[in-house]
Amino acid sequence: MTQLNPRDGHIVLINTFKVKSGKAEALLAALIKATETTVNKIPGFVSANFHVSLNGKQVVNYAQWRSKADFDRAMQVPEFQAHMKEMFELIESFDPVLYELRYSHGA
Amino acid sequence: MTQLNPRDGHIVLINTFKVKSGKAEALLAALIKATETTVNKIPGFVSANFHVSLNGKQVVNYAQWRSKADFDRAMQVPEFQAHMKEMFELIESFDPVLYELRYSHGA
Repeated sequence: MTQLNPRDGHIVLINTFKVKSGKAEALLAALIKATETTVNKIPGFVSANFHVSLNGKQVVNYAQWRSKADFDRAMQVPEFQAHMKEMFELIESFDPVLYELRYSHGA
Repeated sequence: MTQLNPRDGHIVLINTFKVKSGKAEALLAALIKATETTVNKIPGFVSANFHVSLNGKQVVNYAQWRSKADFDRAMQVPEFQAHMKEMFELIESFDPVLYELRYSHGA
């Protein structure tokens, strides 16, 4: 289970994938495989959280990394890049944006 | 602190605001005010989590609601709509998308 806490100091990647028609489940499976075989072994990885939009057109990875430096290094890992290439045939586009979590409020 | 758990059954709203130049902090303050005065009293509200992009151009609300029906009802609350109107002068656009959280993996 993932915890969101503005005081944890993590960097947050929100990566929005626009998927080709009917490919959301295939992309989800590819992301899970990449996470469990490669990404979870990269230093600085904290969590990955995969979401499928209700209309099936978008998949979002909400990922936490220990720092921006760790994230930047992870992007250079050849095995990671190979997984990304495999996903390109399933998607129209992707839009990775880095954020700081500034505020959380629960009911 | 917010918890992400694919088994919690929540609906997830990821709302990406593109902010006018220099307005990220003002939008963050407006979102916090709306949450603490209005949104946290609406039935079905679970959490709101506000993020500012490292480049200062985007603010994201990662929000959890108990169900889509609760979320749809919340959008009709007049006080909520009034807060949204106040925010329009700070933003270029916003893009609310509803998701299911399907998978979480922590380090």
